[in-house]
Amino acid sequence: MFSVLLGSAGQLDFGQILLDLAIVLVVAKVAAELAERVRVPAVLGEIIAGLALGPSVLGLVNPSDALKVLAELGVIVLLVQVGLEMDLVELRRVGRASLSVAVIGVVLPMGAGVVAGYALGETMNASLFLGAALAATSVGITARVFGDLHALSSTEARIVLGAAVADDVLGLIILTVVTRIVKDGSVDVASVLGTVALAVAFLTVSGIVGMFVIPRLFGAIGSRAASPATIGVLAGAAAFGFAAAADAANLAPIIGAFMAGIALGKVPQRDRVVREFSVLGNLLIPIFFLQIGIDTDVTKFFQTHVLWVATVLTVIAIASKMLASIGAVGTTANKLIIGIGMVPRGEVGIIFAAIGLQVGVFDEDLYAVVLLVVLVTTVITPPLLRWRLGSAATVPLVLPTETDEPQV
Amino acid sequence: MFSVLLGSAGQLDFGQILLDLAIVLVVAKVAAELAERVRVPAVLGEIIAGLALGPSVLGLVNPSDALKVLAELGVIVLLVQVGLEMDLVELRRVGRASLSVAVIGVVLPMGAGVVAGYALGETMNASLFLGAALAATSVGITARVFGDLHALSSTEARIVLGAAVADDVLGLIILTVVTRIVKDGSVDVASVLGTVALAVAFLTVSGIVGMFVIPRLFGAIGSRAASPATIGVLAGAAAFGFAAAADAANLAPIIGAFMAGIALGKVPQRDRVVREFSVLGNLLIPIFFLQIGIDTDVTKFFQTHVLWVATVLTVIAIASKMLASIGAVGTTANKLIIGIGMVPRGEVGIIFAAIGLQVGVFDEDLYAVVLLVVLVTTVITPPLLRWRLGSAATVPLVLPTETDEPQV
Repeated sequence: MFSVLLGSAGQLDFGQILLDLAIVLVVAKVAAELAERVRVPAVLGEIIAGLALGPSVLGLVNPSDALKVLAELGVIVLLVQVGLEMDLVELRRVGRASLSVAVIGVVLPMGAGVVAGYALGETMNASLFLGAALAATSVGITARVFGDLHALSSTEARIVLGAAVADDVLGLIILTVVTRIVKDGSVDVASVLGTVALAVAFLTVSGIVGMFVIPRLFGAIGSRAASPATIGVLAGAAAFGFAAAADAANLAPIIGAFMAGIALGKVPQRDRVVREFSVLGNLLIPIFFLQIGIDTDVTKFFQTHVLWVATVLTVIAIASKMLASIGAVGTTANKLIIGIGMVPRGEVGIIFAAIGLQVGVFDEDLYAVVLLVVLVTTVITPPLLRWRLGSAATVPLVLPTETDEPQV
Repeated sequence: MFSVLLGSAGQLDFGQILLDLAIVLVVAKVAAELAERVRVPAVLGEIIAGLALGPSVLGLVNPSDALKVLAELGVIVLLVQVGLEMDLVELRRVGRASLSVAVIGVVLPMGAGVVAGYALGETMNASLFLGAALAATSVGITARVFGDLHALSSTEARIVLGAAVADDVLGLIILTVVTRIVKDGSVDVASVLGTVALAVAFLTVSGIVGMFVIPRLFGAIGSRAASPATIGVLAGAAAFGFAAAADAANLAPIIGAFMAGIALGKVPQRDRVVREFSVLGNLLIPIFFLQIGIDTDVTKFFQTHVLWVATVLTVIAIASKMLASIGAVGTTANKLIIGIGMVPRGEVGIIFAAIGLQVGVFDEDLYAVVLLVVLVTTVITPPLLRWRLGSAATVPLVLPTETDEPQV
């Protein structure tokens, strides 16, 4: 009875939340350790464990708001870690390649997806949403696998992560346009321009604040703070604040977390911040990846129509993103690694599908199709990427060792 | 729009959650730093900052389920830290004193509270609840202040924390009995005995698992795990699992967290676990103390009747717990420090008041009375304790230094 928190928003079963957390953490670790032993990336073990735990298989853990919040905090921490590892000079060097990969990687899958959807008998509106759902790369999966292999500082990782961030901005614009077309039958140029302007404004302002204000602020505070915990807490606040600002600019919060990570990489106490986010990430990031599995209702997949459409779209999803790697022509980066790195769709695809369902152009079947495409592209990427990274000579591959370094 | 997580339980405004988190963390740190500078304990600064942020003053942060969950995780982490610092041999040495302090500290305030309530014109049932709400000491506040002063290993801290844990078990029994009396007009001896048996069973089983199973399990895993993060994650899982088990035994989850902390203090990787919970605590514990303030509706206090009853009960609450320190007669411990340490009522008192409201014996006024008593006893304890600890020669006082040690 002590566990019932009484509040305006109703009652929270805190005992259940604690039990779910304990189960999720233990299962995540067992799955990750087993996966490592059979040379499969830990993240894949975690997603599959989530599927097994979820309501459609074992039903040991049910989706809850508390788990969702912790999972979202997990992906925020992941993107902060990615940002912390980014070398801005290096990122700028690969900027043009990133942008080309991003643009091709949005245009190709979207175009092919719309055509395929229409050819398979879906309405034009549904086809538009199907195409749009194939556009955005999930930075989370890729970042995690690059991180697990300690290859975040490779040129390929930089190009892919830069492209994934650009993808997110492009994806946002597409979502605005497509939703307008479906709802009003026409596009309001002003609102599209407004969307773009807001996104660019966020990236500019957060970049300036991150480059110039945050490092100086932390430098000034570090010498005056009474408590050694202050820097860690302010680093957390910066991450959440940037993420909230990105959300206010209608971007994904993880974009803000990425910008915060870049900024925190410049503070004098960088090592302390890295250690802090490493501890947080160890606990929270597995929750995010299990949550992907827990949220997936496997039973929806076993229908001929769903499987057929999903197969066609999955092939398109993979092939088109692989082709996007031609955007990196002119660099020494391994194109195959870039192509594979762009494949996973992750949570952004699911958000598109959910909005499609919401505005009424998707039925449950098409929603299941997108889920399946997201799941397959997400699940095949880690082993492929590990396989290529393991054999590519261009990547400074360091095997995981017993250190306190961030386990991204 | 990306921030809207779509789930069965409705929609979460994740952008708002992130913004609240950023505000709470920054304000907590500013408040704590300011408090330290005027020689007031940080925890007091945080509670007052929470009052200021909350809906009844500035309205910058509104109570939300997400904040509540993170706050509860914060107090769980706090109690794990307290457990990690406990020396079992030492704890057993002060066990008898703890138990005497606990029993006197429950009987005196409860008896005096019932009499006072009745004398002030409340019904017998309401008086019973008022008395019961005065019984349980809040271990969180006391632990935090002892920890801030690095005095968790003092004899006084051990007696108080042991007594607070015993208080919680006694409080649970009283809550069961009082609720039965109010609801049915009689007490079912079997259900009371069942409550007691369940509590004792949890303490016994968790003690055995914690002493014998956890240290061996961690020793065995530590030498075999592929990832260095495994120990940290399993420590987290143990903490949440013990807390969930305590909840299942109808005890407060923090009792389970305390038992988990004692167990984790025995594992070979204790230092790593201490560091992990230190990082988690730095971020989460301030949320708990701000949450106390945010949840308090200040406007309810300003009524003559409320202020009058609250004043009488506050005097009783303080005097009776101070007198409870006679239970420590026969030890060399400083009785005044023990008395002060037992004073804060914290969240358990609020739970009593909430249940009183729920079963209909409390009106909004009496609920506000209990809130006010809880707030005053909570707010006066830290400065008093710091003042006595600073001047008591029996306590090995170490001033906070710039280390990575847990900032409990």
